Amino acid sequence: MESFKQVLVLRSDLGMSQGKKIVQACHASIGAYRKADKNDIKNWEDQGMKKVALTVKNGKELEKYYKHAKTSGIPAYIVRDAGLTELEPDTTTCVGIGPGTVQEIDKVTGNLETL
Amino acid sequence: MESFKQVLVLRSDLGMSQGKKIVQACHASIGAYRKADKNDIKNWEDQGMKKVALTVKNGKELEKYYKHAKTSGIPAYIVRDAGLTELEPDTTTCVGIGPGTVQEIDKVTGNLETL
Repeated sequence: MESFKQVLVLRSDLGMSQGKKIVQACHASIGAYRKADKNDIKNWEDQGMKKVALTVKNGKELEKYYKHAKTSGIPAYIVRDAGLTELEPDTTTCVGIGPGTVQEIDKVTGNLETL
Repeated sequence: MESFKQVLVLRSDLGMSQGKKIVQACHASIGAYRKADKNDIKNWEDQGMKKVALTVKNGKELEKYYKHAKTSGIPAYIVRDAGLTELEPDTTTCVGIGPGTVQEIDKVTGNLETL
């Protein structure tokens, strides 16, 4: 069977605290999970729900990877922060992509560095 | 209506990298989400899916909060790492608690520090 994973892509330019990054990634993880195909979710869970955290350098890059995932037919979710604590309202912070096959997702995010 | 949240409780004693912490928290977040009551999920989503990252000092503490949440009837999930990268196999790393009401969850984790 093919290998499945989910990736969390975080902006590195916002100076987010560690706790903030964690919360944003969890928003993205659940958001993308809710859009995924049930069979893909089952395969991913059977394989241990592999997740990888990646980083991009700004919001323009983040939007680019989000759109590329969507046009590739992979479930994707972008987090826009409410701006109640550290950030301006509507700041994009993180994108969740998948679960989907490693092969498909690597076509979108394979060149990004791990966090 | 009551306020809802989910908390992610992470061990601070394992020297996990930032990426590792993020991945463990996302495991815990989805794990607890999948155990939650559908009405609680709906209320939590309508309120913006509030999440808070908290910290404990070791695995004994982590197990204690996990058990306290479970015996309080709050959905909870403990992550045991497969040990493929940074940690020994079966190391507990993170607990997800909720979504549930802020009042209920604070009875369990209200004394913990944010990450």
